[in-house]
Amino acid sequence: MRIIVIGGDGFCGWPTATHLSAHGHEVTIVDNLARRAISEELDAHSLTPIRPLGTRVQAWEETTGRTIAYHYLDAATDYDQLRALLTRLQPDAVVHFAEQRAAPYSMKSSAHKRYTVANNTAATHNLLCALVEAEVDSHLVHLGTMGVYGYTTTAAPLPEGYLTVQIPGPEGETEEREILYPANPGSIYHLTKTQDQLAFQFYNANDGLRITDLHQGIVWGTQTEETHLDGRLINRFDYDGDFGTVLNRFLMQAGVGHPLTVHGSGGQTRAFIHIRDTVRCIRLAIETPPEAAEGVRIFNQATETGRIRDLAQKVSKLTGATIDFQANPRKEAAENELRMRNEGLRTLGWEPITLDNGLMEEVRAIAERYAHRCDLSKIPAHSFWTRPKPTEEEAAADPTAVPFTHPAQAG
Amino acid sequence: MRIIVIGGDGFCGWPTATHLSAHGHEVTIVDNLARRAISEELDAHSLTPIRPLGTRVQAWEETTGRTIAYHYLDAATDYDQLRALLTRLQPDAVVHFAEQRAAPYSMKSSAHKRYTVANNTAATHNLLCALVEAEVDSHLVHLGTMGVYGYTTTAAPLPEGYLTVQIPGPEGETEEREILYPANPGSIYHLTKTQDQLAFQFYNANDGLRITDLHQGIVWGTQTEETHLDGRLINRFDYDGDFGTVLNRFLMQAGVGHPLTVHGSGGQTRAFIHIRDTVRCIRLAIETPPEAAEGVRIFNQATETGRIRDLAQKVSKLTGATIDFQANPRKEAAENELRMRNEGLRTLGWEPITLDNGLMEEVRAIAERYAHRCDLSKIPAHSFWTRPKPTEEEAAADPTAVPFTHPAQAG
Repeated sequence: MRIIVIGGDGFCGWPTATHLSAHGHEVTIVDNLARRAISEELDAHSLTPIRPLGTRVQAWEETTGRTIAYHYLDAATDYDQLRALLTRLQPDAVVHFAEQRAAPYSMKSSAHKRYTVANNTAATHNLLCALVEAEVDSHLVHLGTMGVYGYTTTAAPLPEGYLTVQIPGPEGETEEREILYPANPGSIYHLTKTQDQLAFQFYNANDGLRITDLHQGIVWGTQTEETHLDGRLINRFDYDGDFGTVLNRFLMQAGVGHPLTVHGSGGQTRAFIHIRDTVRCIRLAIETPPEAAEGVRIFNQATETGRIRDLAQKVSKLTGATIDFQANPRKEAAENELRMRNEGLRTLGWEPITLDNGLMEEVRAIAERYAHRCDLSKIPAHSFWTRPKPTEEEAAADPTAVPFTHPAQAG
Repeated sequence: MRIIVIGGDGFCGWPTATHLSAHGHEVTIVDNLARRAISEELDAHSLTPIRPLGTRVQAWEETTGRTIAYHYLDAATDYDQLRALLTRLQPDAVVHFAEQRAAPYSMKSSAHKRYTVANNTAATHNLLCALVEAEVDSHLVHLGTMGVYGYTTTAAPLPEGYLTVQIPGPEGETEEREILYPANPGSIYHLTKTQDQLAFQFYNANDGLRITDLHQGIVWGTQTEETHLDGRLINRFDYDGDFGTVLNRFLMQAGVGHPLTVHGSGGQTRAFIHIRDTVRCIRLAIETPPEAAEGVRIFNQATETGRIRDLAQKVSKLTGATIDFQANPRKEAAENELRMRNEGLRTLGWEPITLDNGLMEEVRAIAERYAHRCDLSKIPAHSFWTRPKPTEEEAAADPTAVPFTHPAQAG
């Protein structure tokens, strides 16, 4: 198939692009390299020495004999170029990773909130709009998040996108209706993904677009079969307080001899998936596209759930690292249960990789290998969900001071 | 109270600003005059001779002795100015009209879809973000739409924003939950209002913002007690296929001797409210603000519901006008029932004006008075919900032709 991967240079995008190419698909990457720019902004870089995208695609061709095309393009702002590219390539599928994907980064400041909303809502809508205007019959595969459901304990496992509810009628009867699962976003980043869902529903209903929305768990791991083939293909590995995902942070902290940082009680339960499963699931979704008449197809792209402090203990047991409980910068429930269904992708042939199959050791080994590249000062989380109240002294000095800089950021 | 009305130059904004001022509030209008610019774009102007905003506020002061301040500012793009204004004025309430409000205009072309999404999502989010960053404890009053619920027949009357549902549990038990009523937007414009709802939920929960979302019916009428006081205060009256609201279009068509244009079978049922009730409801919401802990307060701001063809018949009977059934440019159910609850605003003291109380005649008289300003060519609807398939000839000539111009727009 002919496939465009928008955001194909990122943590999930690059492994996806190479995996699809390895499986015989004709892949074009579109990226504005925003993730690399943010690394510069934060001065928080990939633990692994990732190469420029040009080098990556050249190394891919040298290693595998397969080509991946690349266009520098910002899906949120370069609408006409995006539409023209769709018209020219007539892709069978478009994978949409072109969103700011870190919850802490999205809460870092007013400017980061606004960037996340502007970028994510525009990238998604531009893509939908361009598919309609260009009259290209592509299957859109979007990376959503398990976080659209929110992390409150529910009696039933979280279904895949839709919920059947009973609505009481005026005469005591009930009306059964299938609805999009009620959204409960926990950050500005998650908010944008819930807003995306509504846009997908509209464009599917009004324009007949074929859309799969993959509600992904927290990704861990770094290398895939493809990125492992050559050193220049190595995937990025983020460990900083904004972009580092929790399990990778634990494994990296263990690898460099740092205590495992757990926020709050660690009672938060989350869903997880290994990067190798991410790329397989996306390929399976692409190779078995839905019909428009089915509505937007939604899968939970997550392997299993786990409580944060249990994960920390697991890593501690594996590596001997100590655990350091810190104040939680997020506004969230201290403890929650989480169960979910994920039969959709299994039905397409997915056999998930669990936390216990040995890959944790692989991640720790990678972290250890690149420990010399680690900047320990980037580990603490500095993005706060709510602005701490200024001290009386601060308020007296300048009651209307804006913009706000948190002391931890200023230091 | 000190009140900012963002979008205070528009069809609902200007009557709201003057009404609040007449009732003793200290009003500041913020507007980017986008609605006037769009009139120029479409060459479709208010039937009534509205004056420039500067003249309006001057006339208001001369007529009533009360002042209304005015700042030219784009809430969607001028974030820093918006935040600084909030910091300086410390308003008790902010009324948010700063959104593109016409469903047909939002579907006119790819560019109009993207403008509507970009403007509406950014204006709403900037305002929320600025209230938090400036630490201003204002009550935000937003104009939503009954259209967020969608126009499908339901067993029970539409509740005010929230729905209590029963969710089946794994053991046959049920879990009762109150959820935001499932969104079902019928246009890009309506989509943005459903996306706004999610942003309001998040900022209320995370930052404790006090928010009232008024899901308004289709507004009819033009003058209020305040805009009636002096000729220079006259409110706008739109009758074109994009911005004209259905009942005002019928009354205007009757006033100029044009058949009443009904789209499809006219079996669509909608909710309505007179402009005089719009301004009263907004004042009532402001004068009785909610607590943040209540969650986002949602009211249905609509008086009664009616079927389009019944309204046409009512106007026909009143005026002798004929009815002209035309193809429906929208993608919507041909027929639907609609019932709703509206006790929230009634509890605050609202006594609604119904369609039968004589004000239809007033609107028709205004239309007749300004009939000489009418451009009949602007009456037909030229915005289509789905792109008509090109003819074989068109496709052969240029299979990838973009951007698309509908013949009706090109003519």
